[in-house]
Amino acid sequence: MSSPDDKLSAEERLIAHYFKPVATHPGALGLADDAAFVTPPPGHDLVLKTDGAIAGVHFFPEDDASTVARKVLRMNLSDIAAKGARPLGFLVSVALPRDIDMAWVERFAQGLKADAEAYGCPLFGGDTDKTPGPITISVGMFGIVPTGTMVRRAGARPGDLIFVTGTIGDAALGLKLRLGADWMLDAGQREHLLSRYLLPQPRNAAAEAVRTHCSAAMDVSDGLAGDLTKLVRVSGVAATVEAAKVPLSGAARAAIAADPAMLETALTGGDDFEILCTVPPDRAAGFRAAAQTAGVAVTEIGAVAVGEGARFLDAQGAPLAFQRLSFSHF
Amino acid sequence: MSSPDDKLSAEERLIAHYFKPVATHPGALGLADDAAFVTPPPGHDLVLKTDGAIAGVHFFPEDDASTVARKVLRMNLSDIAAKGARPLGFLVSVALPRDIDMAWVERFAQGLKADAEAYGCPLFGGDTDKTPGPITISVGMFGIVPTGTMVRRAGARPGDLIFVTGTIGDAALGLKLRLGADWMLDAGQREHLLSRYLLPQPRNAAAEAVRTHCSAAMDVSDGLAGDLTKLVRVSGVAATVEAAKVPLSGAARAAIAADPAMLETALTGGDDFEILCTVPPDRAAGFRAAAQTAGVAVTEIGAVAVGEGARFLDAQGAPLAFQRLSFSHF
Repeated sequence: MSSPDDKLSAEERLIAHYFKPVATHPGALGLADDAAFVTPPPGHDLVLKTDGAIAGVHFFPEDDASTVARKVLRMNLSDIAAKGARPLGFLVSVALPRDIDMAWVERFAQGLKADAEAYGCPLFGGDTDKTPGPITISVGMFGIVPTGTMVRRAGARPGDLIFVTGTIGDAALGLKLRLGADWMLDAGQREHLLSRYLLPQPRNAAAEAVRTHCSAAMDVSDGLAGDLTKLVRVSGVAATVEAAKVPLSGAARAAIAADPAMLETALTGGDDFEILCTVPPDRAAGFRAAAQTAGVAVTEIGAVAVGEGARFLDAQGAPLAFQRLSFSHF
Repeated sequence: MSSPDDKLSAEERLIAHYFKPVATHPGALGLADDAAFVTPPPGHDLVLKTDGAIAGVHFFPEDDASTVARKVLRMNLSDIAAKGARPLGFLVSVALPRDIDMAWVERFAQGLKADAEAYGCPLFGGDTDKTPGPITISVGMFGIVPTGTMVRRAGARPGDLIFVTGTIGDAALGLKLRLGADWMLDAGQREHLLSRYLLPQPRNAAAEAVRTHCSAAMDVSDGLAGDLTKLVRVSGVAATVEAAKVPLSGAARAAIAADPAMLETALTGGDDFEILCTVPPDRAAGFRAAAQTAGVAVTEIGAVAVGEGARFLDAQGAPLAFQRLSFSHF
């Protein structure tokens, strides 16, 4: 169960060499202590999230390690954004196969560092282990919001408008492309969809707009239809979405034109990492303005009503029947 | 990379059924949101730690899942204690093989619940995934200390006395027993060592004594000799320990009597989860008294001096030469 080691252990060397440069916050103590510390700003709540990824399950083993690191961080950053919070820092655990190439670890740490800096979310601690299994990454992230203001899933009220940020379905279509789909897209369209799968663009810039104006919010990670269903379930309301209003990229439109079944993929596929939120009608103008100021596109796609369940309507007003509401890695 | 699912996903069902009962804090929102929230007490720093365990690396696959859960939590609780902090809560990620027995998950969650309650450390979020590899668990834990008072490894000064809590070496000897060692121990002695390996007893009761009186502290998880070496390295000092002063259980003494090589195992083996700390001489009486009030045994084992490195002396005052300073899973 153990192997002997002298002086600085292999894990210590790995941490000092690759991960210490990511831990730039003074409270991280250069990752040379048992724990780290940080003083949370007064008058704020912590917002806590953990999400991870496993090679061969959530990413392709051949994916660039830097991109993998950034995707796992961004999966968590997206949740922090959807709660109206700003990131404060993160912890990371990485289980590595014994034959791991140290170049992989170096690239992984470089990816963490790039996004830790880009999102103002420093590393506060890590744990590295050897595993007989695949590369397994877990991130624990903590953000902050003014006390009592975390935006929840439960909070949508009849009459609220439903918005999403960005575009929907790109990542799910990118994964289909990766797995061999061919819709005769041009190179730019292919690249758009593939990159949206590989590297999410979480909407942290919109967090303050969400916190200020939204009655409920969540990030779209398991597919818009399934995630909206979760939101209305815990809110105790119903939702109706006009499918034609759901914002799609030009590349996604081209894929759907080539294969209409891809509309369902776009609306139920995962890895969007956009924000789905509900906004009281009298806050809609303010929400649009705040999102615009933040540089994040938002689109109204439907409305909340009394009842239960989420319905997607086609151009004729008939409900779309999906084979499934969302994809699950589980 | 994905499998379809309808309505409540398999992961949602698993979380709702097994893990929701562990998430008793109102800010956990019954694990039915993207994230959780908690209001940290004013005037405190957060103390952040992550540590995990993998089946076949850190625990035996046949170990009771409840005990595995409690051990992983306690590994993290021990670090929080050694920093003088009290636990506030934790996040957990669990990667499960596809053929996992749901009874294992149920027992695992029961173990989490038992220790979350025993240590006042509620669950704030989780992530479950399927893995082609072994069971892989990662915990992210956060504690609190009054601002600026986290006890660090770097802080030992020449003249300080060196203390440890509890007894040293039991877990490493318990692992040897588990792997087939036979020192003709009686049943009670065997049970003591085996249980110390299986289920650490972190010294969270002593956290306040550590915070109030210690100049430096860390938990002993990779072996006393190696961990003391780390502490003096970052403190820029030397340490001398009289091996005869190191507190050993009766069972450990019996094992060493049967095989004197087991002294090195006791002093360099891992999984003690005791607190190693340094105390200025004028605080020693106060530290002893505070620890006694907390019900935690503490033993003075040596002293800090100018210089570098950690030396262990035998009864004749000669340095013990260890084949290795600590064990590493890595």
